[in-house]
Amino acid sequence: MNDLLQTIEPVTLMGPGPSCVDASVLAALSKPTLGHLDPYFIKIMDTIKQQLKTLLHTRNELTLPISGTGSAGMECCFVNLIEKNDPVLILINGVFGRRMQDVATRLGAKVDTLEFDWGTPVIVDVVQKELSKKSYKLVAVVHAETSTGVLNPVPGIGALLKDKDTLFLVDAVTSLGGMEILMDDWGIDVFYSGTQKCLSCPPGLSPVSFSPAAVAALQARKTKVPNWYLDLSLIMNYWEGATRAYHHTAPVNMLYGLYQALGLILDEGESHVFERHMAAHLQLVRELDLLGLRMQVDASCRLPMLNAVCIPEGVDDAEIRTRLLSEYKIEIGGGLGPLAGKIWRIGLMGHTARPENVDKLIQALAAVLPDRTGN
Amino acid sequence: MNDLLQTIEPVTLMGPGPSCVDASVLAALSKPTLGHLDPYFIKIMDTIKQQLKTLLHTRNELTLPISGTGSAGMECCFVNLIEKNDPVLILINGVFGRRMQDVATRLGAKVDTLEFDWGTPVIVDVVQKELSKKSYKLVAVVHAETSTGVLNPVPGIGALLKDKDTLFLVDAVTSLGGMEILMDDWGIDVFYSGTQKCLSCPPGLSPVSFSPAAVAALQARKTKVPNWYLDLSLIMNYWEGATRAYHHTAPVNMLYGLYQALGLILDEGESHVFERHMAAHLQLVRELDLLGLRMQVDASCRLPMLNAVCIPEGVDDAEIRTRLLSEYKIEIGGGLGPLAGKIWRIGLMGHTARPENVDKLIQALAAVLPDRTGN
Repeated sequence: MNDLLQTIEPVTLMGPGPSCVDASVLAALSKPTLGHLDPYFIKIMDTIKQQLKTLLHTRNELTLPISGTGSAGMECCFVNLIEKNDPVLILINGVFGRRMQDVATRLGAKVDTLEFDWGTPVIVDVVQKELSKKSYKLVAVVHAETSTGVLNPVPGIGALLKDKDTLFLVDAVTSLGGMEILMDDWGIDVFYSGTQKCLSCPPGLSPVSFSPAAVAALQARKTKVPNWYLDLSLIMNYWEGATRAYHHTAPVNMLYGLYQALGLILDEGESHVFERHMAAHLQLVRELDLLGLRMQVDASCRLPMLNAVCIPEGVDDAEIRTRLLSEYKIEIGGGLGPLAGKIWRIGLMGHTARPENVDKLIQALAAVLPDRTGN
Repeated sequence: MNDLLQTIEPVTLMGPGPSCVDASVLAALSKPTLGHLDPYFIKIMDTIKQQLKTLLHTRNELTLPISGTGSAGMECCFVNLIEKNDPVLILINGVFGRRMQDVATRLGAKVDTLEFDWGTPVIVDVVQKELSKKSYKLVAVVHAETSTGVLNPVPGIGALLKDKDTLFLVDAVTSLGGMEILMDDWGIDVFYSGTQKCLSCPPGLSPVSFSPAAVAALQARKTKVPNWYLDLSLIMNYWEGATRAYHHTAPVNMLYGLYQALGLILDEGESHVFERHMAAHLQLVRELDLLGLRMQVDASCRLPMLNAVCIPEGVDDAEIRTRLLSEYKIEIGGGLGPLAGKIWRIGLMGHTARPENVDKLIQALAAVLPDRTGN
């Protein structure tokens, strides 16, 4: 094996993703490659669809993993639904809301935005007021803003849209597998996620799900989807039905990994998995507090799986992260955009969300942080 | 591990891809996941760029694997270079030429096509005549038509374009790693491939390369690339330079596999690898002939890695393929489009291109084909 692979040292992945991957998921990746039309492989595909539907609490037939990372899922959801000049409202309080604005704008949508302070959640009443002024084809929000650690009130926004002819699009890249998502009950029409966060599978796939209303919107398009690779009307012919029509060659081994990762979550039990995330989060907050470190986000809307921690004054962001990685083999993330240099992003996602990892990080932080008591 | 993974039986992959994967590549996939900004991982990324440049015989700085399958590479090349109404000429003699037409048309290009009979190559003189009538921003052709097994005359077409202000785009999904490609010498400006053919890596990544002229065209765009996920002007900031700017989370473990697969080819030596493909191909043709099976494509333009074999009259296409898979654990491919039911596509790609695999297939075919001698 090539040199660099032989000497990879495992890292405890406590950043904004990828997260730690269970040994059984890594082993799944190296199972023998099958053909993408092999009936045995199609059984695995069918099981993955079922696993995703279970985890999303949805009856949506169009539920499948896109052959690209989470951002491909974002691209896929918008490109399948947006036609030129479609009115779209995007709720923004972080990098990923802004990314949705960029994606939708490039596709020719008429994009309105509601901006909220980074580090605070979307305010439902403000959204309601905006919705009373204008009708939209689609309203989009990020469930768990990975850039700030804020949980947005998806059920509340969904409730506003329930009787409207507006599609509700939710980015659940960071939340899926780490907290409850009730796709149908919350009125979510369009959903995407990623594998490398709380699903604890390596990056490379993006689960998406479209409600019957979203599928109807896709079918009612006047123009072809301007992206052949991500055209769900073609992709669904490969993932559904008796005859599987070749579209592109599915990433077979990555799908083995996703199948195994989803199986681990469902075997452990959703509620147990979510409690494990919350317990690790509360432990982290408690122990950071003892180190004198403050959380960036108010407790009312903190994500369990992505913890934004204020970098104390006088502490060198990059130096601490470099030392954690090189001396302790722990990765944490830096801030993005306006929060660069101001916060660390500590991920407790999926397999990472365990007390021993919190302990390890706290001990390492205690060792590398300058003694700020003056002693 | 989940049931279906435990009982996967290895299949000898002799279809149009995926191909057989070396054990060391499968093992590479299961190495510990690192962060996508980890300096150690960036060393692997840098090595992959260098490996690809070596294999493509190019000095192009913008040479990297896209985070999607081969069709994502096709999408990427067109979406980065095409703006509305750009004149494009696509040379078509199979499914993948037609796919390029679809992709470019969806992006708003003014697409002209030159069609050649499926199973025969593009004729350079016909292209020359067409080019004398009109000037194009881009001319596109498939090097190795996976749907028919035909080799197209890429160097000849490149020579026609050498002094023109026209970009030359080549689909090398099936050829890369199985036959020589001299990207710079042949005047190729835009290149994409896939991992699951002659690179013998599982599907999921698409190497692309842009010449300085193609990069200049990208930089001279009047509009933003209408695809955030595949915007190379953003992606190159992650793959190049001293500071690596986060774009999307790279498919880390898939890239381990590609790194290992490229290493195997370069260690074996390009010329040895290409000779191995040709020897396996000639052996297959010889032994198929002894079974009374005829090749679809003339010997002058046959691909070594994708062999289109005429299905004898009276033989049930699907039944034979099903029996090969279920009884002999060998996968071969059926025909696509107008060739469905008329040909089998036998892949000798990458790791598959070995005499023992040819022997295995021939023995199996001899057993499952009806005795047509009347004895």
